[in-house]
Amino acid sequence: MTGWVKIAGLGPGNEDLVTPEVTAALAQATDIVGYIPYVARVAERPGLTLHASDNRVEIDRSQHALEMASDGKRVVVVSSGDPGVFAMASAVYEAVDNGPADWRNLDIQVLPGITAMLAAAARVGAPLGHDFCTINLSDNLKPWEIIENRLRLAAKADFAMAFYNPRAKSRPGKFERTLEILREECEPERLIIFARAVSRADEAIRVSTLGEATPEMADMQTMVIVGSSLTRTIDRDGDPIVYTPRFVAKAEG
Amino acid sequence: MTGWVKIAGLGPGNEDLVTPEVTAALAQATDIVGYIPYVARVAERPGLTLHASDNRVEIDRSQHALEMASDGKRVVVVSSGDPGVFAMASAVYEAVDNGPADWRNLDIQVLPGITAMLAAAARVGAPLGHDFCTINLSDNLKPWEIIENRLRLAAKADFAMAFYNPRAKSRPGKFERTLEILREECEPERLIIFARAVSRADEAIRVSTLGEATPEMADMQTMVIVGSSLTRTIDRDGDPIVYTPRFVAKAEG
Repeated sequence: MTGWVKIAGLGPGNEDLVTPEVTAALAQATDIVGYIPYVARVAERPGLTLHASDNRVEIDRSQHALEMASDGKRVVVVSSGDPGVFAMASAVYEAVDNGPADWRNLDIQVLPGITAMLAAAARVGAPLGHDFCTINLSDNLKPWEIIENRLRLAAKADFAMAFYNPRAKSRPGKFERTLEILREECEPERLIIFARAVSRADEAIRVSTLGEATPEMADMQTMVIVGSSLTRTIDRDGDPIVYTPRFVAKAEG
Repeated sequence: MTGWVKIAGLGPGNEDLVTPEVTAALAQATDIVGYIPYVARVAERPGLTLHASDNRVEIDRSQHALEMASDGKRVVVVSSGDPGVFAMASAVYEAVDNGPADWRNLDIQVLPGITAMLAAAARVGAPLGHDFCTINLSDNLKPWEIIENRLRLAAKADFAMAFYNPRAKSRPGKFERTLEILREECEPERLIIFARAVSRADEAIRVSTLGEATPEMADMQTMVIVGSSLTRTIDRDGDPIVYTPRFVAKAEG
């Protein structure tokens, strides 16, 4: 049997957002590898072994998947959202890059999924309908100075911004600092969206402004989207629509 | 009958990348609205009316969809990729914002899809595995100066970059100018990926560098991804893997 690794995106949580390509890969797999809550989304069946592991062991998990594929297993590495956005695809390729030479010619594929920022954007309207940037706010993975520099340049470029991993107990004060930097660079009316557990039963979405936002509005389950200077709301019964127009008037350039 | 509008993402082309949520919406619809090649992806059936329109009539198309929903129709507005990324979601909300007040309380939903940059990234590895930005290179929608400023700031921030609509006959020389700006800001070894017709039968992907890239490597069907300074290749039999590591060493900060 020829083994393979498919690094699959399960989307933000709702099963209606899992692509048929991913569903087919799960059905063909002999082994599923991933973080505990994502592996828990895969139904058990005869012939399928589930290997759930804790957070922060992405390289161990990747090596395990590659070893099993070398032994002829059909391995799906599961990520939430899209595996290429702050998830398992880079980790698996880091393991390939630093692993035995024969891993390079394994059959490895990335199966895209609905990433959290696009699911969150869809729920409120179209805040990412113009140019935007995507930043992982965790400084576990890079120096804080890089994050601060990127935030300031992104504001100067007038990008809308999508933030993954905005806040964690292990990084006290950092999201507060993010809001401070944004307040230095942008006007207080700038829109900011806190989208928690998008597409899941406990989904909670809040539309605020930089002037009124507080750090407690985000946790590790929250996707944060900051609008550009042109992002606007449409008031209606219930929650407002938030969208960024496609056009920038030529006179404003 | 209560009408609604669902703005649905059909993904990059392969039917295996259409979410079940979108498939269900298409099955419930009375009317499909969209650009000719996207409407052509929806199967005809009794009770379903297809309204295909030409490019660049996004607001007319949106108004038509909203009018039909007001009349009780179940309307799906189809986009390729994700409707929230340089597609129909912003156009529909622009029409709502500038339309009659009762359109604001219509049942309008955005159904996310697999956007081209994530499908393209998946095909080559994980080039968007660290912080990145997403820019529409068309200056039909904004002054060219804004694009040039964003390119320079994005390079200074060391974002990977994903470009939609890189090149068109109506914008001669502009993609050439984009490459020039990037060469001024980045080293010649910087990786650049040209991904045409991703997930379709005529898919063609090319991995190059800023030093070697030429404007002819892109057309309107091409997604262009430029790596960050840390994006690297893994050589193997066949095309190389391209990925951006998750980590930036603290000493480099």
